[in-house]
Amino acid sequence: MNFPMNIWYQAAWAEEIVNDKPLARTIAGVPLVLFRDENGNVAALHDVCPHRFAPLSRGKVEDGIISCGYHGLAFNGSGKCINNLHGPTPKVGTRAFPVAERHEAIWVWPGNAELADPAKIRDLSFLDNTPETAKFRGYMPTKANFQLLSDNILDLSHANSLHLESLGGIQPGFKMEARELDEGVEVTWTAKNVEPNGLTRAAMSEYSLVDQYLHCSWRPAGLLILDGGAKMPGSDEFLEMTRAFHSMTPETDTTSHYFFAVTRITDLENTDVTEAVKKLTYQAFYNEDKPMIEAQQERMGTAEFWSLRPALLAIDNGAVRARRKLDKIVAAEHAGDLTAAAAE
Amino acid sequence: MNFPMNIWYQAAWAEEIVNDKPLARTIAGVPLVLFRDENGNVAALHDVCPHRFAPLSRGKVEDGIISCGYHGLAFNGSGKCINNLHGPTPKVGTRAFPVAERHEAIWVWPGNAELADPAKIRDLSFLDNTPETAKFRGYMPTKANFQLLSDNILDLSHANSLHLESLGGIQPGFKMEARELDEGVEVTWTAKNVEPNGLTRAAMSEYSLVDQYLHCSWRPAGLLILDGGAKMPGSDEFLEMTRAFHSMTPETDTTSHYFFAVTRITDLENTDVTEAVKKLTYQAFYNEDKPMIEAQQERMGTAEFWSLRPALLAIDNGAVRARRKLDKIVAAEHAGDLTAAAAE
Amino acid sequence: MNFPMNIWYQAAWAEEIVNDKPLARTIAGVPLVLFRDENGNVAALHDVCPHRFAPLSRGKVEDGIISCGYHGLAFNGSGKCINNLHGPTPKVGTRAFPVAERHEAIWVWPGNAELADPAKIRDLSFLDNTPETAKFRGYMPTKANFQLLSDNILDLSHANSLHLESLGGIQPGFKMEARELDEGVEVTWTAKNVEPNGLTRAAMSEYSLVDQYLHCSWRPAGLLILDGGAKMPGSDEFLEMTRAFHSMTPETDTTSHYFFAVTRITDLENTDVTEAVKKLTYQAFYNEDKPMIEAQQERMGTAEFWSLRPALLAIDNGAVRARRKLDKIVAAEHAGDLTAAAAE
Repeated sequence: MNFPMNIWYQAAWAEEIVNDKPLARTIAGVPLVLFRDENGNVAALHDVCPHRFAPLSRGKVEDGIISCGYHGLAFNGSGKCINNLHGPTPKVGTRAFPVAERHEAIWVWPGNAELADPAKIRDLSFLDNTPETAKFRGYMPTKANFQLLSDNILDLSHANSLHLESLGGIQPGFKMEARELDEGVEVTWTAKNVEPNGLTRAAMSEYSLVDQYLHCSWRPAGLLILDGGAKMPGSDEFLEMTRAFHSMTPETDTTSHYFFAVTRITDLENTDVTEAVKKLTYQAFYNEDKPMIEAQQERMGTAEFWSLRPALLAIDNGAVRARRKLDKIVAAEHAGDLTAAAAE
Repeated sequence: MNFPMNIWYQAAWAEEIVNDKPLARTIAGVPLVLFRDENGNVAALHDVCPHRFAPLSRGKVEDGIISCGYHGLAFNGSGKCINNLHGPTPKVGTRAFPVAERHEAIWVWPGNAELADPAKIRDLSFLDNTPETAKFRGYMPTKANFQLLSDNILDLSHANSLHLESLGGIQPGFKMEARELDEGVEVTWTAKNVEPNGLTRAAMSEYSLVDQYLHCSWRPAGLLILDGGAKMPGSDEFLEMTRAFHSMTPETDTTSHYFFAVTRITDLENTDVTEAVKKLTYQAFYNEDKPMIEAQQERMGTAEFWSLRPALLAIDNGAVRARRKLDKIVAAEHAGDLTAAAAE
Repeated sequence: MNFPMNIWYQAAWAEEIVNDKPLARTIAGVPLVLFRDENGNVAALHDVCPHRFAPLSRGKVEDGIISCGYHGLAFNGSGKCINNLHGPTPKVGTRAFPVAERHEAIWVWPGNAELADPAKIRDLSFLDNTPETAKFRGYMPTKANFQLLSDNILDLSHANSLHLESLGGIQPGFKMEARELDEGVEVTWTAKNVEPNGLTRAAMSEYSLVDQYLHCSWRPAGLLILDGGAKMPGSDEFLEMTRAFHSMTPETDTTSHYFFAVTRITDLENTDVTEAVKKLTYQAFYNEDKPMIEAQQERMGTAEFWSLRPALLAIDNGAVRARRKLDKIVAAEHAGDLTAAAAE
């Protein structure tokens, strides 16, 4: 498995974990069952009953207790066995993983629990602060390594080949700058005096020329905030701005959970634009990105990325920096340097 | 492959082997073709033509001779090649396996033919002696190791979680006793003064309280007779009794053939009860047991059972004894002690 | 991979490669994209973009240039990168394979390009010279090793078991002769004074007795020309003759591309007969040969053919000679003797 374990991964949207219904989801290679305990807090347990290995997710949740659907052993949110229908309660439990609910998302830490600090979860308060009418969320399971999905957002030039009919391409004359920080990678794309296209045209068709702006901010393992907006040429004020959260979680080495949330930052009341953006986004993600990236994974097979000797182009600058940063985190974990690995 | 080879496995119900129609079935990892020879006796041949490896089961049976559908080589029930359409008959044959038809079932011995003695087939004469109107038979291929299926019957406590809506649970206050014999394992469950539920209710709804009784008798590799009945409280006479045969045959390490036959022992003329029992049984087996046990296998993957360190509970007593007995038989076979392995 | 690489394989029928539409096809284990360059010549490139490994076949072809659908890198028919939408054109290209269009087919040489000489392509000018009304072509992907498909044509005795209802069997009293040449293997089947059956009956039902003739000419790796015809008993003149081209190309070790073309040599204007032959051929190939050969492959698994110790019969003479010849070619390639391997 080629991803860090001592890190917070998004495991679900908060709304996916409802009362009485356990959710099975494999995160970073670990099969988990997610459910709400007696206080409504989300619990994440190893989805394997210690008795006979049935998935707990096939059982039921009552009053915050999950019981195995096969022989009835019951576990609380800490993974402690608290009831055996047919005899003394066994001391053996099932492993509980650190879990946090924040910014409308459920976060799970698959590694060393002692290192799990919710303060390390990326600040996504813009999700909390955007009214429901001005945003939408989605989940797209994808048969590709999660880094191929990060690469996709870190190199937006692909829009010129893949998204011309939906989100629109990167405009001619765009300038790209990639910058490495201690905590991640930032990539900015700017273009001046260009015709609005794709998403921008959907929001501001009345302008013939605008200054366009895209900013992508990546944090490990696969968390990206992507701002896209437009200003009147020469102005400093955004007439239009969309902020999207792209969250890639490894399921296995070759499959991923892709969570996304798109929020409007300007023109919040205009639900027509939100709907238009939503339609274009689903078109782009499901019909354009997903088939291409899954085909890319299929051609790569199980080979390690660098072993295939990719041709490095200028547009890869941001994605390559992010990959190298993540490689270091994984290498440090494998070397046992958990502090380095856990630092975000 | 983790199962004995020098043992009789049920390969089919007798009625499955009809004239002119070869049946392909893999038993204990060996692809077999089953058909009736010129005397109506069932033959079991390696289902691979020695000429070019086509499955003989794609050929045709005429007058008890099976001929390969590809180039026409013909074999009798002993696996001897008796005709080559296009030249001299080759000396090479295909391996024939010891086979017996007994108690409405077809039995195959995949191991050393010299050790195969039909007298070692478990006595199931109750199947022969029950009229057709008071019984039913079934076959349920299952994507799970055959021992997971034996475990399921040896530990009936699972009914309280899985079968409450169909067969009914084990009643509160039930007492379980497991006993090991030279030839197998016996488990008895009894409860006094309980309300009839599930199967029992179907048969005797007019009684408000009964004494319930369940008895499971396991023989290697995966043959179980399960008696379930009820008496008037304090009485010795069964008002109601069902006797079921559960027969688990390994196909591969992670897939099985599950044959079952359920017979009524009391109240034979009441076909309504037989129909009710049949309906509940199919509900329990196909919709409740099978999905759970296949999910259990999926979580276990290809790991060896004990290597996963299952939590051992009191209710596992019978199943664990059966597993340990079978482990010894397999170990003896692997060590070359065929006599021990063949002893039932 | 157990097949020669320094050899011409049929990769497609010429008509499959149309303007603007790249075709993805894996030949001898190599994923290829086939398209027409600016001169209308077919190009065969490694179907993996050197930038990020997306399949080029998911891109588009314009004016003979293929561009990757992901980031837009464009390649000419030589595999040279000639455009990068987003910066300087990188020096890295994708591998181009020797390709030739001849006899209505596209031929690819997956091995050492320096050894690729189109003069080595088998002469199939009969395909060019037969009018469209008197022939038909097909393509049948098959889940079996390509040599199992060659074996099938080299041993026509299988028709007596498999094709009695379609193409007709080999007649009683047929004589088979197999002959080995430097360049391949020839097998002839003759029968005198037999009733027309199958294909022959379709063409000449007015004759009650004929002399039948079948001639199969194999060249490595899997190219066969099969003549089938009939004469008046004792005559030298064919009243009826069909010439078929069978072309088996390995996709992987256990899957193949089966191309076939059937031409009428006599009675060219009689399109009714051509239609009848076509119908019988499709029946035989798709419903009779393909399921049997795929079942044969399934039973063989990934085992090497000779390791399974096939029973060798007289009818195998031609197929065994062809296999041994091919084994030598592969062994010579593995030993580095490219000249021997390339010699046809």
